[in-house]
This record gives sequence, C-alpha cells and structure tokens, in this order.
Amino acid sequence: MIRVFVIGTGNLGLHLCKALEQNTLNTQKQTVKLVGYYNRTGKKEPQLSSKLYTDLHTIPECDILFIATPDDTIKNVSRMLSSHATIAHTSGSVSMNVLKKHSNYGVFYMPQSFSKQRDVNFNEIPICLEYNNDESKEILETVASTLSRKRNYLNSDQRKYLHVAAVYTNNFVNHCYAKAEEIMNKYDIPSDLLNALRQETYLKTIDQPAKDLQTGPAKRGDKETVETHLKLLAEKDHKMYLAITESIKKMYEEL
Amino acid sequence: MIRVFVIGTGNLGLHLCKALEQNTLNTQKQTVKLVGYYNRTGKKEPQLSSKLYTDLHTIPECDILFIATPDDTIKNVSRMLSSHATIAHTSGSVSMNVLKKHSNYGVFYMPQSFSKQRDVNFNEIPICLEYNNDESKEILETVASTLSRKRNYLNSDQRKYLHVAAVYTNNFVNHCYAKAEEIMNKYDIPSDLLNALRQETYLKTIDQPAKDLQTGPAKRGDKETVETHLKLLAEKDHKMYLAITESIKKMYEEL
Repeated sequence: MIRVFVIGTGNLGLHLCKALEQNTLNTQKQTVKLVGYYNRTGKKEPQLSSKLYTDLHTIPECDILFIATPDDTIKNVSRMLSSHATIAHTSGSVSMNVLKKHSNYGVFYMPQSFSKQRDVNFNEIPICLEYNNDESKEILETVASTLSRKRNYLNSDQRKYLHVAAVYTNNFVNHCYAKAEEIMNKYDIPSDLLNALRQETYLKTIDQPAKDLQTGPAKRGDKETVETHLKLLAEKDHKMYLAITESIKKMYEEL
Repeated sequence: MIRVFVIGTGNLGLHLCKALEQNTLNTQKQTVKLVGYYNRTGKKEPQLSSKLYTDLHTIPECDILFIATPDDTIKNVSRMLSSHATIAHTSGSVSMNVLKKHSNYGVFYMPQSFSKQRDVNFNEIPICLEYNNDESKEILETVASTLSRKRNYLNSDQRKYLHVAAVYTNNFVNHCYAKAEEIMNKYDIPSDLLNALRQETYLKTIDQPAKDLQTGPAKRGDKETVETHLKLLAEKDHKMYLAITESIKKMYEEL
C-alpha cells in the first residue's frame, strides 16, 4: 500500500485529496491511501474524512508527499520537510529542481482548472509526470494510474511551455467569453444568444486543429468590418481587439 | 405553404437550404418549402435536391427570399431583385435598411459558425429576427419557428453588437486555441494534453458568468509568472499576450 499525504487544500489540493479518498474506498486492493492532509488555516475540510494536520513537523509516516501550495511557496515548504517519502509538487511552472534536497522527488502536474464547487472527473485529466530516478518514477506512476487513464512524461521545460499554452486555453479563452458577455449585457442582448456558438467553437476543435478552423474578419483581411467593430467597442477594448486581430492575420500570412 | 428561395450557398446558405429541405420532408403540414436556390458559380450543390437557378432574373415565384451572400454584396443583390416576396438577409453586421427598396423586408441572423463539413442542429441555434412591418414579421417568424425553438427580436444596433461579441466568442477563442496548439507543437508536447482543460473551460461557463470564473496570473496580478511567460514566448506573441493580460487586470481592477 502506498501512503499519501497532501500539503495544501486549495482548489487542486482539495480535489486531489477527494480523488484519493474515493479511490481508497473504490479500489479493493487499496494500493493507494490518503493518510492525512495539511493546510495553513488549520480548518478541517468538510468534504474530507482523512485527518487534518496543522504542523508540518508532525506529519505521519508516508510514502509520497504532495506539495499543492502556491507556486512561490513550494521551495520553502520543501525545505521544511524532513520526510523520507518521495516529494512531488503539482505546479505547471515551477522547476522540479526546487525539490532537489530530497532523495526522491518529482512533479505531478495536471493541466486542469479546478474549482471548489465543481466535481472533477480525474479519469480524463492527463497527469504530467517528471521524476529524478526510477524509484520516484514508480511511485508517481502508481498513484497517477489509480487516478487517471492518461499519463505522460514531460520534462520541466516542456511543462513550462504547456503551462503557457494552458493560460491561452483557459485564462485567455475565459476572458474572451467575459468580454463577449460584457458587450451583451451593455446592450441588453439576452445572455444565452451565444451559447450555441460557444459550444460549436469548442466542439469543432476536438477533431481538427484550431488553425484550420479560423474564420471571421481578421482571417479574411476584412478591414472594413474591423474598423466598424472598433467604432462599436469602448476605447479601452481596442488594444486587445487589435492585438488578437493582428495575431490572427500574422498566423495566416505566414502560410 | 410558404415558398422559400435562398440566394448564396456559402457555409450558411447551404446549411439553411439543407435545413429547409429536411423540414419539408419532416413536417406533415409542409408549411415551409424550399423552391430553389441560386449561386454564382452555377454548380449544383450535391447535398441539395432542390432546383439550382443561375440567373437572378428567372427566380421562381416565392414568398420569402433569403440573401445569404457576403456582407459587402447584400446591397447589390437586393437592388437586382424585383420580387414581391419578403426579402431577408442573414448577416450579423449589415443594417436592415440596405433592403428598404422592397415593401417587406427583414433580417434572419443566426449567430453560429457554419462549416460545410459539419452537421448543424438548427433547433438549438437562436434566430435573431428584425422586420419592417407585421407582414414581414409573420413570415419570418413562421420560417424561423419551423427551424429552431429559439427566436429573438433584435434591432440592427443590437445585432451589430452581438456580432462583435460573436467575434470574441468564436474567432478570438479559436485563435487562443490555435496559439496554444502552436506552442505545444513547437515543443513536442502531445497535442491532446489540454483537451480536458479546453472542455472544462467551456463547460464551466454554461451556468456561471465567465467574469466570475477567471483565474491565472493576470487575474491575481502575478507579475513574476507573466514575466516568465514572456521570456518563453516568441517576440511576435508578446503583444497579444500582454494585451489580454492587461485587459484581464483592468476588468478586475474596476470591481
């Protein structure tokens, strides 16, 4: 049995704990078990049944320890740990080397957007692993395989780039949705009028590269429509509208 | 029975014709019937069984005539028509008034991204109507109601703004996907690693405003991560990355 401990119960840490607890319940073999979790606030998570620890020095014996705290705290948390367990962080942008004071360490990165209110199907989330040796590899792969059917090896560099790509895919896409909603609210346009378009835009790219699917005024070099749109938009929105429009034009000029 | 004629078989025109033909087949009452279509190329569309017309002067008798040609041609096409039918265009950004030489006219705008290869479920696409009088209203609403369960009245101004919002929702979102794919290809990262994130980003906004869902370095004012990302990105991508990042910051500063 692999005993797991999780440090941090932010959006990701909490979902990881929940998935590990469910996994313990569901798997007959009980190969992986959450033995406890730590958070800074000292408040028990109502969604978790495992034991809360509020002092990093009294962490129980375990085989793997996940650091699921904010990026800029990972190095410090790592320094405070004297466990012989394999230490893994869950960040997309922090290098694996910040954990190198330990004998066995690695990274367990899930490129997903977690929020406390929403359930997550771990089975479909790819887990991107990195490890410093075969021992770390084995334990990380075992834990990952009990959670998801999608696992990959990525080195620290690739992971950083994946994290940038995730910012485009999540943060930037969400902001485009938000800007569209802002415009519609302003002009009393029913907010659900673009739901079908949003869905189709997403669904289309499941089996085709997005690059091959681009349409619209920027792609076809329709300056007149771009000018009209700029006149309709608030001054503060011109910069982003133009930057994306330019970027689209550039992508297809290069062809 | 309402006899319909469609001018233009681009992505939208073709799907409109197909939906009208299927509707004719499926509806027992046959209240709406496609009596023919026109296109400039003079080539019969293999997906359509209705008659192709190649001369706008020999269009058959009909009750409603859709102009589904590119935005900048609508006015000219309208001028060439001497039909007594109700004339409607299908554009998001062209004002209804370009059709005013006719007695009955209106707009039949579907904020959706059509492509020839993909089937479309019209039933879920909102149809945004505008009309110059009650007669036009009645015929447009009847046709719309046989195609979709979602109909709205929007005036020309609202429709223009909806069209801008559609550019954010479709063109800009698709370009963010394309940029993410570009980065992943460049660094040999498996292209499916962000599929789950893309899906979640879309699904989350079905029941919550996107504005309330924003996360990431721009939202939390994490300058260090923004700087790191800029170093990782090609010079040509800085402008768009920064413009979106600034726009996100601004949206939440205003709160």
